[in-house]
Amino acid sequence: MQTNQCVIGIDIGGTTTSFGFVDRSGALICETTLPTLANQSAEALVPRLCDGIEKLRTALPPQTSVSGIGIGAPNANYQRGTVENPPNLNWGASVNLVELFRQRYDLPVAITNDANAAAIGELLFGGARGMKHAIIITLGTGLGSGIIVNGELLYGADGFAGELGHTTVDPTGRYCACGKHGCLETYVSATGICRTVFELLAQRLDASSLRDVSCSDLTSKIIYEAACGGDAIALAAFDTTARILGMKLADAVAYTSPEAIFLSGGLAAAGDLLITPTRCYLEEFLFNPYKGKVKLLRSELPESSGAILGAAALAWHEVDKTTTPSPSLSRRGA
Amino acid sequence: MQTNQCVIGIDIGGTTTSFGFVDRSGALICETTLPTLANQSAEALVPRLCDGIEKLRTALPPQTSVSGIGIGAPNANYQRGTVENPPNLNWGASVNLVELFRQRYDLPVAITNDANAAAIGELLFGGARGMKHAIIITLGTGLGSGIIVNGELLYGADGFAGELGHTTVDPTGRYCACGKHGCLETYVSATGICRTVFELLAQRLDASSLRDVSCSDLTSKIIYEAACGGDAIALAAFDTTARILGMKLADAVAYTSPEAIFLSGGLAAAGDLLITPTRCYLEEFLFNPYKGKVKLLRSELPESSGAILGAAALAWHEVDKTTTPSPSLSRRGA
Repeated sequence: MQTNQCVIGIDIGGTTTSFGFVDRSGALICETTLPTLANQSAEALVPRLCDGIEKLRTALPPQTSVSGIGIGAPNANYQRGTVENPPNLNWGASVNLVELFRQRYDLPVAITNDANAAAIGELLFGGARGMKHAIIITLGTGLGSGIIVNGELLYGADGFAGELGHTTVDPTGRYCACGKHGCLETYVSATGICRTVFELLAQRLDASSLRDVSCSDLTSKIIYEAACGGDAIALAAFDTTARILGMKLADAVAYTSPEAIFLSGGLAAAGDLLITPTRCYLEEFLFNPYKGKVKLLRSELPESSGAILGAAALAWHEVDKTTTPSPSLSRRGA
Repeated sequence: MQTNQCVIGIDIGGTTTSFGFVDRSGALICETTLPTLANQSAEALVPRLCDGIEKLRTALPPQTSVSGIGIGAPNANYQRGTVENPPNLNWGASVNLVELFRQRYDLPVAITNDANAAAIGELLFGGARGMKHAIIITLGTGLGSGIIVNGELLYGADGFAGELGHTTVDPTGRYCACGKHGCLETYVSATGICRTVFELLAQRLDASSLRDVSCSDLTSKIIYEAACGGDAIALAAFDTTARILGMKLADAVAYTSPEAIFLSGGLAAAGDLLITPTRCYLEEFLFNPYKGKVKLLRSELPESSGAILGAAALAWHEVDKTTTPSPSLSRRGA
């Protein structure tokens, strides 16, 4: 009898871990979340997560088998299967998360960082389907990126390729949490645009509702709403953000010559307010041979489930690579 | 009877075209040059070049067969086989050089730009042998680059990937011949370091032998010799060049995470004067996960024949790809 295959996609965040079962077409069959409890170890999270998976599994239609597990996590290394020095998790220098899952499940398991997972998701289920060369940018608290080259995610020599958020905009510029100065994500991200607002409030004299918001209270959503209402400072902040992003994306094109660049994540939800001017600046900064040839697009993955779909896409990629015949979810131990 | 195989490597420059026969190990069997005559068409160059090849061919050892032709040329597009708007050649918008050669020779023919050819040369015959991920930078009049990803040269969606010379250092900076401002090659190249010297002469008061040299007369060689003699301006110019190069190479690492970066070309011949400080600045600007992991090396291809070897490496790559059995140099027409 023919069984329907699906994979497990897991997105581990600093606060919440989301996971779900995803079929071959990218449809999310069912999903749920649990608190990550960032102060506990990875060894404590995995059993809780596996219990959650088993519970959720009962919601799968009959005759559905599970073929693999994909995980998106901060500072994850695909080549080593590890999470290394995650900024918001008390997991230490390195923990082999793939190994921990393999102790429970005899299935292909793969891990990569959230932006890389988003890139594979876009390639398998989103707007990059059929593309050989693309770049996916996630604009959240920071700026993540995944680079598709010759139809595959680029990992590089050490498994950490595609960290555009830490390319330099200005070597004497803003402090970055990474210890450097003027990294792209200190300008272009949900937190970066807040910093830009405070710089603009200092430089300019325009009346602005943002003058009434404290640094601690300001969010990119507040800036977005002010910009929609015509606030001059908020509009200028989006323009500044778009200019820096456009300039650095033009650099990105000069590296890998992609067919398209996709923007995803919270700040990308600002839509035309960000994408339209970024498209203009990108074109302005592009080296002649690339002009008019690179599409700047919004991610086609839904904002809410993009991270799970990305992790699931990674799982499908592993399943196709290993071609392990895994007709059922075989659970080790327990 | 066993024949020895070789390929033809051709390097087309604005003034001189060099070509030679190269065996499988990268040994240059024989070589020669002819004037490119840049004001004439490509259709005029090719027959002269073919005559030159036939003449040089008589110098090959007996039982040597020719298996393919590789060409390095400015603004060459590997995917289309064309040279497009070459800056120093009167060849018009686009000429299909591969087609012109294929009319004469029934052999695999491939073309790419000189920096890409240098990269394939480094990969096949030089220091990048066995590497999966590397970046090769050529420092001549401009700054060219070729990016090796997963053991292959990266061409991207349009055949023009790897143009690091036109990534932006300062959007309000120096005019670039490409029409943009502040491109990397306006700072880091044989001409870029000359511009830096004049900026330093304006800013500083140090005595310097370079104060006696006109803008028209200044060369990177003069700066190199002054630096070797302890000239403060010349030394500062190398330091400035190294700082900007180190910063942009750190960006490059954040894209493709290479195992090593190779410097070649005239300015790289300055050796420790450039490479040692660039290595320090690169390390300073690297994002933490890459620190201590990326080698900065000088090209292992000889300066004099590197361009021919690079073009020959491209030819061998095509021969291996097509696996066309070409036991002898079959000449069409004539």
